[in-house]
Amino acid sequence: MTQILHGHILHTPQFGRLEVIPDGYIVLEEGGIAGLYNTLPKKYAAMPLEDYSDCLIMQSFADMHLHAPQYPMLGMGMDLPLLDWLNTYTFCTEARFQDTLYARRVCRQLAEDLISSGTTRVSVFSSRHTDATLILMEELERAGVTGFVGKVNMDRSGGPVQESTDESVSETRRWLENCRFAHVKPILTPRFTPCCTDTLLKELGRLAAEQNLPVQSHLSENTGEIALVKELHPDCHQYWETYHKYGLWKKGTLMAHCVHSGREEQEAMAEYGVTAVHCPASNVNLCSGTAPVRELLNRGVHVALGSDIAGGDLLAMNRVIVMSIRASKIVQIATGAPFLTVPEAYWLGTTAGHQYFGGGAGFQAGCKLHAVVVDDSAMPEPARKLDLTERFERSVYLMDKRHIKAVYSEGRKISLQK
Amino acid sequence: MTQILHGHILHTPQFGRLEVIPDGYIVLEEGGIAGLYNTLPKKYAAMPLEDYSDCLIMQSFADMHLHAPQYPMLGMGMDLPLLDWLNTYTFCTEARFQDTLYARRVCRQLAEDLISSGTTRVSVFSSRHTDATLILMEELERAGVTGFVGKVNMDRSGGPVQESTDESVSETRRWLENCRFAHVKPILTPRFTPCCTDTLLKELGRLAAEQNLPVQSHLSENTGEIALVKELHPDCHQYWETYHKYGLWKKGTLMAHCVHSGREEQEAMAEYGVTAVHCPASNVNLCSGTAPVRELLNRGVHVALGSDIAGGDLLAMNRVIVMSIRASKIVQIATGAPFLTVPEAYWLGTTAGHQYFGGGAGFQAGCKLHAVVVDDSAMPEPARKLDLTERFERSVYLMDKRHIKAVYSEGRKISLQK
Repeated sequence: MTQILHGHILHTPQFGRLEVIPDGYIVLEEGGIAGLYNTLPKKYAAMPLEDYSDCLIMQSFADMHLHAPQYPMLGMGMDLPLLDWLNTYTFCTEARFQDTLYARRVCRQLAEDLISSGTTRVSVFSSRHTDATLILMEELERAGVTGFVGKVNMDRSGGPVQESTDESVSETRRWLENCRFAHVKPILTPRFTPCCTDTLLKELGRLAAEQNLPVQSHLSENTGEIALVKELHPDCHQYWETYHKYGLWKKGTLMAHCVHSGREEQEAMAEYGVTAVHCPASNVNLCSGTAPVRELLNRGVHVALGSDIAGGDLLAMNRVIVMSIRASKIVQIATGAPFLTVPEAYWLGTTAGHQYFGGGAGFQAGCKLHAVVVDDSAMPEPARKLDLTERFERSVYLMDKRHIKAVYSEGRKISLQK
Repeated sequence: MTQILHGHILHTPQFGRLEVIPDGYIVLEEGGIAGLYNTLPKKYAAMPLEDYSDCLIMQSFADMHLHAPQYPMLGMGMDLPLLDWLNTYTFCTEARFQDTLYARRVCRQLAEDLISSGTTRVSVFSSRHTDATLILMEELERAGVTGFVGKVNMDRSGGPVQESTDESVSETRRWLENCRFAHVKPILTPRFTPCCTDTLLKELGRLAAEQNLPVQSHLSENTGEIALVKELHPDCHQYWETYHKYGLWKKGTLMAHCVHSGREEQEAMAEYGVTAVHCPASNVNLCSGTAPVRELLNRGVHVALGSDIAGGDLLAMNRVIVMSIRASKIVQIATGAPFLTVPEAYWLGTTAGHQYFGGGAGFQAGCKLHAVVVDDSAMPEPARKLDLTERFERSVYLMDKRHIKAVYSEGRKISLQK
């Protein structure tokens, strides 16, 4: 089936490069991008057209790190230090995913909130609960969100959500056997080194190799955590090696935070093709620090963005993009490293994540469409006619659900709950 | 007339102290607070009652620094350095206030946006235009927003919005003669030292004394500005002295930013009763730095918060409160100064501003009610029943217009445009 979208097209095919097609056309064949045009080629003249006239057709967002079972505690406990926050809020909240009816309600609300905020690709941590994890995948699939979900593995220091090593491995296998979703796929998810015994990490490394599975975890988020990892793995010179030792550090591995990753760790990310997921709101909320994003990029590390719900309090990825700009300005004030421009930060929150999943450079031909249509007509009346670059920037800063008129995910137009 | 409000009452009578009255009653007499009660006294049993049952009745916000004519450029030009930002965007945008029909539309949209976001008290910079300034006052009054508005004075380095010294003074007098609004009063507003000649500052100081008018301006926002002020006023050891010299540094003076105010400048604020207006979003957006809020407070300076639209991109003051927490966490990471807790930052964004206008300590008896009623039932389903402190914190982080069920300003219930 051929479909045509008409509107102002804005995308970032390369880091920092915003491409604008005013009054343009996107032609889709079976949801895949056949081409972008300034003028509609004659052969498409009779095809069905969605006319978004003066709206902005922008890339949708990719949220590469969030914790679904923490969604119920969004915006709470932020005055607590990391370990108290984990023990007072996080683990107890995650424990509730034992109740599948509750998990279903939370996952449905989260999935709807994601898609209506323009997030169409995600890599999510579930809890340790297999059934709730399958429910999460089902609810994302139903809402039109695509990407990866992981049942969390944690066989030590996990309070009420700890599992035994055997249980962790056998439940992971049971979970994998039951993952049968079209657009939501499994990713192995050891919580982080302090919560996983060596035996568990080893088993997960074996599973990753055996079933060719991707891996996600946390890395170098705060200094206390790094000291603890050093204590637990005296043989490892650096944090990343604790994952590498067990075959979990490889192309396609996602590592959230990397706030305190030094040169060697950054080089190991670039060398192995590990993606750093920058979570600016969370890093500030939990007083972790500000990640050296420009340095990571300069070293050739692939960097994407994450909301890190609920260490982060911002689910809407345009607000996370803005937070990444603010965090980079803080870094600039301190170190002089140039801040992230709007097109650069937008690339991190869109293209970088889409590419992780095999998507293209912006709206690249051959790839399924992931887009949001933004109606900015209710934003403050400007002092003069704005150009599209200005409207793009303003939308990144100001858009919320009310401005999002349509969302396309994996080539499908999604019906939004308003 | 007696009116009664029923709901969960939350307010900050002192810096950092949150007082909670679950299922409480606020009794109003002619819009003034007669008392807060756990149980409704019998004598009020037959009086009209607004039942907000399970909603939160919280203090409304005070935005102590924003630029009305910059509202049209909200969320734009953020990648530019301060001076380019002023010259490319700000001055041209402000120049449009020459057109009173345009000014009317912008002011109406801004006033409605303020009140529906729960901001009931403001101190606003208008442009240099007298007529537009009067329109701004009228539109705030109409929407139910109270506080101060200033016609901006700027007789040098003002590009398209510069005025002559004589014009600046005579137009200020004309403006003052025409200020006849019940809840919106004039405040003298020299833009900042670099934009005002000595003659103008002197005339404004005279006017301030003559008509007993309050003053607002900018102080020590960025290092380039401070160097420029030093150059213009070689006789002044510090920036604040350039205002003091002309009688503009006095009790009731509002100084926005104070990012780089050192010990002596801070002490001069405390000594003279000058209020520092902290604008965390703006300071980061424009790479100015992070204000030493804890230090200012420890030195006895009265500190309130401002959105600083449009250097700031966040009009909703709960989001500015959250940004002040984030900024303080950045400062903590760098210097160890304890970050602002949620009740502390909330006090800055509410009580501190209300007190500036003569309001009380939280919902203090004898003061007119300034409140927002928050319905948090559509926020993510929590993992367990939340206590009111948690719901308060969550509301500060997550609320937006959709959650604001009612707004009271100066004792009056405002009809919100939804």
